[in-house]
Amino acid sequence: MNKIKVAVFFGGKSFEHDVSILTGIQVIQAIDITKYEPFPVYVDSDGYWWTGDALLDTRNYPISDALKSKLLNVSLQAGEATIRPSLKIINAPLFGKKRIPFDIAFLAFHGAEGESGAFQGLFETLNVAYTGADVISSSVYMSKIATKQICKSLNINVLSETIISKPVNEEFIDIESLLKEVKVSYPLCAKPANLGSSVGVCKVSNKEELSSALLDIFKMDNTAILEPFVENLIEYNIAVMKNLDGEIITSVIESPNNENTFLSFKDKYLSENGAKKKGLNISAMPSDELIESRRKFQPTLTKKQEDFITQSAKSLFDFMGATGNPRIDFLSNKKTGEIWLNEVNPIPGAFAFYLWQNSTHHISYTELIDIIIENGFKNYDKRQYEINLKTSDSSIFKKK
Amino acid sequence: MNKIKVAVFFGGKSFEHDVSILTGIQVIQAIDITKYEPFPVYVDSDGYWWTGDALLDTRNYPISDALKSKLLNVSLQAGEATIRPSLKIINAPLFGKKRIPFDIAFLAFHGAEGESGAFQGLFETLNVAYTGADVISSSVYMSKIATKQICKSLNINVLSETIISKPVNEEFIDIESLLKEVKVSYPLCAKPANLGSSVGVCKVSNKEELSSALLDIFKMDNTAILEPFVENLIEYNIAVMKNLDGEIITSVIESPNNENTFLSFKDKYLSENGAKKKGLNISAMPSDELIESRRKFQPTLTKKQEDFITQSAKSLFDFMGATGNPRIDFLSNKKTGEIWLNEVNPIPGAFAFYLWQNSTHHISYTELIDIIIENGFKNYDKRQYEINLKTSDSSIFKKK
Repeated sequence: MNKIKVAVFFGGKSFEHDVSILTGIQVIQAIDITKYEPFPVYVDSDGYWWTGDALLDTRNYPISDALKSKLLNVSLQAGEATIRPSLKIINAPLFGKKRIPFDIAFLAFHGAEGESGAFQGLFETLNVAYTGADVISSSVYMSKIATKQICKSLNINVLSETIISKPVNEEFIDIESLLKEVKVSYPLCAKPANLGSSVGVCKVSNKEELSSALLDIFKMDNTAILEPFVENLIEYNIAVMKNLDGEIITSVIESPNNENTFLSFKDKYLSENGAKKKGLNISAMPSDELIESRRKFQPTLTKKQEDFITQSAKSLFDFMGATGNPRIDFLSNKKTGEIWLNEVNPIPGAFAFYLWQNSTHHISYTELIDIIIENGFKNYDKRQYEINLKTSDSSIFKKK
Repeated sequence: MNKIKVAVFFGGKSFEHDVSILTGIQVIQAIDITKYEPFPVYVDSDGYWWTGDALLDTRNYPISDALKSKLLNVSLQAGEATIRPSLKIINAPLFGKKRIPFDIAFLAFHGAEGESGAFQGLFETLNVAYTGADVISSSVYMSKIATKQICKSLNINVLSETIISKPVNEEFIDIESLLKEVKVSYPLCAKPANLGSSVGVCKVSNKEELSSALLDIFKMDNTAILEPFVENLIEYNIAVMKNLDGEIITSVIESPNNENTFLSFKDKYLSENGAKKKGLNISAMPSDELIESRRKFQPTLTKKQEDFITQSAKSLFDFMGATGNPRIDFLSNKKTGEIWLNEVNPIPGAFAFYLWQNSTHHISYTELIDIIIENGFKNYDKRQYEINLKTSDSSIFKKK
C-alpha cells in the first residue's frame, strides 16, 4: 500500500520561528509511519524552503550556510496545475531527481504568515491540500481585535478594549499626543494586537508605564490593545476540533501555571529527558513531567464556568467554519469567578496535544496528527466541491 | 526613467471569471502608461497562468488550445526569495527569455480565491507587492456572515439572519428535516453566503419556495442566509478607500437601477459604443450612457441616511485595517427610510470607478488605478516593516 506523503512545513518569518522548528520535528517524530511518509520542509527567515534529513536534528539549528549547501532548496510553482502536488528541486543535480511529489502540506508554523492565513492562501491558490484552519479563520483568530468583535456578536464575554495604532513611518513616536485622546483607567493590561503567545503583554499602572509599554509593543506590532487589568488572574485554556465523525469536540481544560508567565521557549519546549524517554535521539519532545509542572488539568470550576468555557469555544469554532484545531484561552478573576474569552491560537505550540491526551477522549499525539491530516483532506474535498459549484457557469464568452 | 512594471492578474476559478477578464483588460487600457508598464496574467479555470498580447483582445475568449500554444505559460515560485519578483516562463523556448520581472501584482479578480484572501496570501507568502484588500479583510468581506458579525459589534445596522448549512457529501438533500428546526417569517430573502454579485438571491414567500430556493443556492454555495424581506426595496452603494495622503475618503452614493436586478454580465459590462468612444479597438470599457442608464448618482437622502451610509462605510473600512477599495452596499425600505448595511465587495466590478468619477473628488479611472497601485506599495512597505519587527528575535537556537 502506498503511504500518504506528508510535507511538514515549519519555520517561517516569525517571532516564533524557533518554536515552530520544534513543533515540526515533533510531528515527524509522532506521526503514524505505517500510514504516512513525512518529510520536513523548513522555511528559513529569508523565505527559502529546504528539505533534507539534517533538518530533523535540533542540533543543526540555526542552519549554517555550509549545511544549506548539502540540503535541497525546494519550491512550489503557482500557475502550474498538476494532478499531484510536487516540490520542485531548485538546486537539483543534473542527473538527480527534479521533483518531490506529496499529498498534503502539514502546517506546523507558529505566528506570522504561516498561522495568519497567508500560507493557507498559497496552498488554496495552488490547489494543494493542507492541514489546519482555513484562510478566514486563521486570519481572524490571529487578530485579537477581530476575534473580540466576532465574540461580541456571538454574545461571548470578552474584556472591553482600547486600540492604539502606531503612527507608521515616523521615526520618533510622539506618545504624549498619541495618548491625548485615550481615556483609560489604571491598572490596565497592554498587549500587541497580532502577536501570538504572551510576548509583549504587561501590566500598566500609570501613564508613564503605559508610554514605555507602548514603545516596547511598537517594536513588535503596529497595534496595541489596552484592556482592564484582571485582578486575581487565573487562566484557562481549552482545545477544540472536529473529530473523524465530523463532531465538534473539546479537550480537557487546563490552567497554565502562571508563576512565571514569561517562560523561555527553551524551558517551555525542550527537554533532553523527554526525548530520551521516548527513545528519540533528538530533543524536540517535551517530557510529561515538564508538561505537568507547567499546567494543571481539570482545575476546579463551577458548572457554569465550565459550560461557559466549553460552549464559547464550540460556538466560536463552529461560527468560524469549524476548521483546524485551535486552542482557546480564557482569563478569569479567581475571586469573583468572572471569565472572559481572551484569544485563539490557530496553531498552538505542540498542537496542544497534552490537552487531548489528558481529555476524556484520550487522544494521543499520534492520533491527533492523524485527525489533523484527515480533516485537511476533508477540507480540501469540500473546497474542490465549492470550486466546481462556483465555476459551473460563466456567461459572457461562451462559444456557441 | 524606468517604468513600474505591473502584472495585471485576472480570470481565476470563479463564477465571475468572465467579468474579471473585462476588468483586467480595462485596467490595462486605463492605466497611466507614462508611469506604468502593464501586462496581462490570465489565470484560466484550471489554474494555469498565461501571458501574451492576445489576452488583451476580448474576441479571443474563451482561449482556445491553439491560442494557448502561442501564449507564454508562466508561474511564480514559492520558496525562492528574490530581490525583484519575476514570473518564470515554463514553456520558454531554449534560447528565449526565461523570466518576466515585475514590481507589483494588480489583482483584478472577481469572486472566489482571487477576491477572498487566497491569492492575497500567495503574494504575501512570496513577499510580492500586490494591490487591494489584505488577507483578513478580503476573507471577511467575502463572507457575508462574518461581515454581518463585525458590523453588529461596530453598531452598524444590519438585517437579522438565519444561517442554513448544506449537509456536505450527501447526494440527496433532505430539505424537510433541514428546515424542521428553522423558525422564520415570510416573506424572506434567501441568498448564498459567499458569492459576490446578486447571483442566487431571491424572494421567498412560503416553505415550498424556500425549499426550492435552498436547492438552487446549494448548487452554488454550501451555506445559505435567510433575511427578512425588505419591502419597498431601494439599494444604495458607496465606495471607500484611502487617498494618497492616507485619508479615508468615500465616493458619491449611487442607487442602482433595480428594474432588472439580474442584468446579464454582458449587458452590465460590455458595450461596443463605449470602447469606440474612447478610441479603443476592443470592447472592455462600459460606455458612460450604459453606466448612467443602470444607476442614479446622489439619490435623494435625508442627512441622517447619508451620514449613516458614509460613516458606516468609513468605520467598517477603518476597523478592517483600511486596505483596498471596496464598494459597500446597503438596503433600504424607501417608505420607512430604514437602512441596513448589506455586503461588501472587496474588488467591485470595474473597481467602481464610476463612483469615484462622479464623486466630489473627481477621480478618473486612470487616477483610481494609480491610487490603487500606490496603496499596494504602501501596504507592502508596512508588511516588510512588520516582518522585520516580528523576526528581530528568536531565542532557542541562537549560536553564541
